[in-house]
Amino acid sequence: MYEGAVQELIDELGRLPGIGPKSAQRIAFHILEADPADMQQLVQAITNVKERVKFCSICGNVSEEETCNICRDPRRDPTEICVVEESKDVVAIERTRSFRGRYHVLGGAINPIGGVGPNQLRMRELLTRLTDSQVQEIIIATDPNLEGEATATYVARLLKDFDIKVTRLASGLPVGGDLEYADEVTLGRAFEGRRQLS
Amino acid sequence: MYEGAVQELIDELGRLPGIGPKSAQRIAFHILEADPADMQQLVQAITNVKERVKFCSICGNVSEEETCNICRDPRRDPTEICVVEESKDVVAIERTRSFRGRYHVLGGAINPIGGVGPNQLRMRELLTRLTDSQVQEIIIATDPNLEGEATATYVARLLKDFDIKVTRLASGLPVGGDLEYADEVTLGRAFEGRRQLS
Repeated sequence: MYEGAVQELIDELGRLPGIGPKSAQRIAFHILEADPADMQQLVQAITNVKERVKFCSICGNVSEEETCNICRDPRRDPTEICVVEESKDVVAIERTRSFRGRYHVLGGAINPIGGVGPNQLRMRELLTRLTDSQVQEIIIATDPNLEGEATATYVARLLKDFDIKVTRLASGLPVGGDLEYADEVTLGRAFEGRRQLS
Repeated sequence: MYEGAVQELIDELGRLPGIGPKSAQRIAFHILEADPADMQQLVQAITNVKERVKFCSICGNVSEEETCNICRDPRRDPTEICVVEESKDVVAIERTRSFRGRYHVLGGAINPIGGVGPNQLRMRELLTRLTDSQVQEIIIATDPNLEGEATATYVARLLKDFDIKVTRLASGLPVGGDLEYADEVTLGRAFEGRRQLS
């Protein structure tokens, strides 16, 4: 509907995740009318990410160096590795400040329908890390959904011949939530995982 | 929370309209993991829009030439001008295929709280266009909200000394809608604007 460049920009924006045709149009007009210096910054930010950001050669987290901040940090406990699907999950866990070990980012979850098998994930890299034998516990923190559970099961089976404790994050009622509105599966898990108070 | 370039990109994306922190993060990771050639296309699309797209010197619509497609098209009726707020509105009206005249894009609506007065809009350019005296009708198609109505009233008053018919798009029940769910103002307008059938 628009002349060349505007329509091309709307099309390109529409390919980004979560951006529908209306948002794409709105953002395109924002870009069109914005200060050229601001838009130069946006372009630069995209270019920088593509040029500078790599994945940590140890854990697979995003990093601008060969290894990421966390893997380079000598204060992080090398005996615990938390296995997550994505770099976003590392940030979410870091925000809790309740984990001082290291991470391993798989790069996704097992999803046969989406064509993602264990070989597309960083499983071999995880096994390689275990050969240094400092590791005492692997905490599996994949998402609590079908793909995440399948991945957790796969990782646990992969590690069963190692003399390493393998744990999984607890499922249960979200804090601040309302029992009445919890779904059956979550409530069932909360029962299974109940803890003795006294 | 992220290392340099990734966080910078999230911040830049978060400045775009309708993109919250979660979407910005999601899009940033998409950009990070996407094919570099695709991202080069996105960057190029942004750059092209900033470099190539201007505003038509006659009507104010977006254009890659000095004047836009519609103003250059000799088949478009020069006796009717439809006044709209934004280029997006031109596209919406073009999609109906019910108007074959020309447009005038004001570049917004009068909004005293937002600091937009008539002088920030392309009012003077509209008056200039009327001096060629081919124009017989001005159709005011600003949004049917407070700012749009104020703008319509302003334009109508501006044109009252010209020998030109000034009309406003009808307000009323949206086609396919349900009378029961129409708001009072819309239903009131539908009464006022009722048409005789026989």
